[in-house]
Amino acid sequence: MGTVVIHQASYVVTVDPSDTVLRDVDVVVEDGVITEVGDARVGPPPRRPTEAAPEPGVTELDGRGRLVMPGLVNLHTHLPMTLLRGLAEDVDLQGFLTRVWAAEGAVMDPATVELGATLGALESLLGGCTTQLDMYFHHAAAHRGAVAAGSRHVIGPVFLDGPGPDGLAWEQRLALLRSWPGELLDIGGPDVPVSAMPHATYTCSPEHLAEVAAVLHEALGETDLDAPPQHPLLTTHVSENAAENADVRERHGASPVEILDRAGWLTGHVPVVAGHGVHLSASDRARLARAGAAVAHCAGSNQKLASGALPWVDVHDAGVRLGIGTDGCSSSNDLDMWQAMRQAALLARLTSGRPDVASAHEVLRAATLEGARALGLGDVIGSVEPGKRGDLVLVDLERPHLTPVHDVHALLVFAAGRADVTDVLVDGEVVVRDGRSTRVDTADLLARARARGAEARAAAEAT
Amino acid sequence: MGTVVIHQASYVVTVDPSDTVLRDVDVVVEDGVITEVGDARVGPPPRRPTEAAPEPGVTELDGRGRLVMPGLVNLHTHLPMTLLRGLAEDVDLQGFLTRVWAAEGAVMDPATVELGATLGALESLLGGCTTQLDMYFHHAAAHRGAVAAGSRHVIGPVFLDGPGPDGLAWEQRLALLRSWPGELLDIGGPDVPVSAMPHATYTCSPEHLAEVAAVLHEALGETDLDAPPQHPLLTTHVSENAAENADVRERHGASPVEILDRAGWLTGHVPVVAGHGVHLSASDRARLARAGAAVAHCAGSNQKLASGALPWVDVHDAGVRLGIGTDGCSSSNDLDMWQAMRQAALLARLTSGRPDVASAHEVLRAATLEGARALGLGDVIGSVEPGKRGDLVLVDLERPHLTPVHDVHALLVFAAGRADVTDVLVDGEVVVRDGRSTRVDTADLLARARARGAEARAAAEAT
Repeated sequence: MGTVVIHQASYVVTVDPSDTVLRDVDVVVEDGVITEVGDARVGPPPRRPTEAAPEPGVTELDGRGRLVMPGLVNLHTHLPMTLLRGLAEDVDLQGFLTRVWAAEGAVMDPATVELGATLGALESLLGGCTTQLDMYFHHAAAHRGAVAAGSRHVIGPVFLDGPGPDGLAWEQRLALLRSWPGELLDIGGPDVPVSAMPHATYTCSPEHLAEVAAVLHEALGETDLDAPPQHPLLTTHVSENAAENADVRERHGASPVEILDRAGWLTGHVPVVAGHGVHLSASDRARLARAGAAVAHCAGSNQKLASGALPWVDVHDAGVRLGIGTDGCSSSNDLDMWQAMRQAALLARLTSGRPDVASAHEVLRAATLEGARALGLGDVIGSVEPGKRGDLVLVDLERPHLTPVHDVHALLVFAAGRADVTDVLVDGEVVVRDGRSTRVDTADLLARARARGAEARAAAEAT
Repeated sequence: MGTVVIHQASYVVTVDPSDTVLRDVDVVVEDGVITEVGDARVGPPPRRPTEAAPEPGVTELDGRGRLVMPGLVNLHTHLPMTLLRGLAEDVDLQGFLTRVWAAEGAVMDPATVELGATLGALESLLGGCTTQLDMYFHHAAAHRGAVAAGSRHVIGPVFLDGPGPDGLAWEQRLALLRSWPGELLDIGGPDVPVSAMPHATYTCSPEHLAEVAAVLHEALGETDLDAPPQHPLLTTHVSENAAENADVRERHGASPVEILDRAGWLTGHVPVVAGHGVHLSASDRARLARAGAAVAHCAGSNQKLASGALPWVDVHDAGVRLGIGTDGCSSSNDLDMWQAMRQAALLARLTSGRPDVASAHEVLRAATLEGARALGLGDVIGSVEPGKRGDLVLVDLERPHLTPVHDVHALLVFAAGRADVTDVLVDGEVVVRDGRSTRVDTADLLARARARGAEARAAAEAT
């Protein structure tokens, strides 16, 4: 895989345990692993390139005037829905769902899902988001599409009691999960957990939720449900709005989190990511905290759909891990993790009435290391430290809106944006260079997305 | 001034009374005035340039794959505070003010104000914001700085009962207002109102507020206070947080809006812009609506400082004109009107609990035409229509996060951002071309801003 040397980065925002910021140092990535950050390094001395004669297999990036930070982790999204962005605006939730479902039913075959996932992964990577926890039907197609763009893409089979847009029966979904570990290896791409993705507690019965957890264990070769399998992940939508909570309580006499607990999800053996988690009771929070489960906070989508406002301080203080997500483009319209960070920080201050909470440090950590930990990847990615995989982002500071630099964390959360990202590494590979993908023929991709998007729109308008 | 022709713009979002969107049309600006938008034109036939031989004095811009829209109007900001961005983070309001005031007192002389205003105007223009309603001490210096960058910059003398950072006595401030119409002409730049800017009803007495309004009339040659003078503007901070309302009520037994009414500001003869307006009573709203006054909604700053959440639907339904502002960089960290639009739309849905309010159409109009009307410039700028001045923005649509285009208004408010702006015209002059200022030596400006910013930081840290 070769070596990437970032020379003399003006700032390195490490997100290490001490939140160290380094000035004017090199960062070296060898064969996918960060081997040097300033004076700190692991392994043998680096093959230091020189300006006179760069070695073969060495990529050199100029870090002067730039900031190096960990790749952003989008903890809840639906990448293929990029093709539907703006398709259902200025309508209430029912109108929204009617239009989106019509479009999905009409066009979202595996090839279209793959196209939409590549588009979503490309948008994500150009904006410095290196990992996405995705959820969509035809998961293998979505994974192929996102991995092709160079993304560390986390996905797995989606489960619904009913047939869903893909028309599958329950047993067919379980079969998809059993074969998913092998398929993941076949598709390749950066290391990610094997994931199972029941849609929600209002669309999957408690018994089915328990069955999915058991089959995930089994698929990973671990038949003892009290023992942790290798590299699993469970995720679902949890308490996104008040109507969902009411619906689940009417069906089951319990909250969504209580249903997950009954289904054996909250043992602490398997990482669990609760998408949204806007309306959690104190008891719900305590249950999630005990299990080490995470909430994927999607401040933009929650406001746009009027779902409500997650009380960041309450969730944080309960000990629940908080990550940041964008949700899908049909509800939040883009995949901009910088927006999502800023919205999370602002909303936390609004809901608490305190200007001194959800600091830029805390929110940046949520969007990087905490997101990585939520996925069981805390030792793999999420910070700029020797020994971790090289998922790194370079930000150009030589811009009017980033001048002067008084507080580099505040600059990232409250002033920087996706377009300030110049270069992106995933697993040590430079997948974005000078603002352009090194892997995707962007003009061709956009043309195909427009054509397929027009067909989706025609389907939505026919409803 | 010459002619600018935008050829074959893929979309023109006019923000005209019917919210017309045109496809694949030319836009022509001659001597500062929009003369043609598609088939609609005023004046004689344009001097149509040809690809073979462009005429002298004609600038040609390629509109293919691009969108043309009116320049954004930032209805409340403090441009010179760009130099202080991130200087007071993760502290409460009192800590914030202590640090910011120390830095201001130490470094904000006229030359520094001019530098900060140029930096702020440059950031604004690069992001497609062509007009800013600014408020800062050393207003003439700020105006020189912003006009140098090419901005349509609205400012005037600031008033405080006490001495303030500039150390002036009340009579000296009145003298500054009397001479301001002449100074504005001397400095030049695009047409703007003559403005007077008392800081707030908790820092200016009701008698002083009345005196400022009278002197503004007089400065514009109109001694009859019941007659409208030419091109005036009054602006001040109004009900930004609950503590301000309590303070004013304790001092005067009235709300800030009631104080303005008593001071003769709400006659309807002079445009009034109320900065923030977060905590307005129904009676306050009715008073502002009757006077045709506007509220400058700064959703980002209001959340970051935990000031509260303006209830968009209530203010809008009361008939109060709503514009969009960023506030200054020391409280919201950048001057991004795209952020401000999106935050306004999201917050409106959150505060109302309805996903079908604050449509993208309504929010884009607030950030363009309604902002222009609030400044008394509704016939001059704010929409792409023949006869208006050429304050125009080109947006590059050939980007993954803007693909596909299903709803062009939603795309602008919920997916686009400052970095999608390629070219910007103010008063018919191309002041940003291919993402770069045609007027400012950016590298030199950033170096000077860093040096002066470091001195501001040293002053803040010495407190």
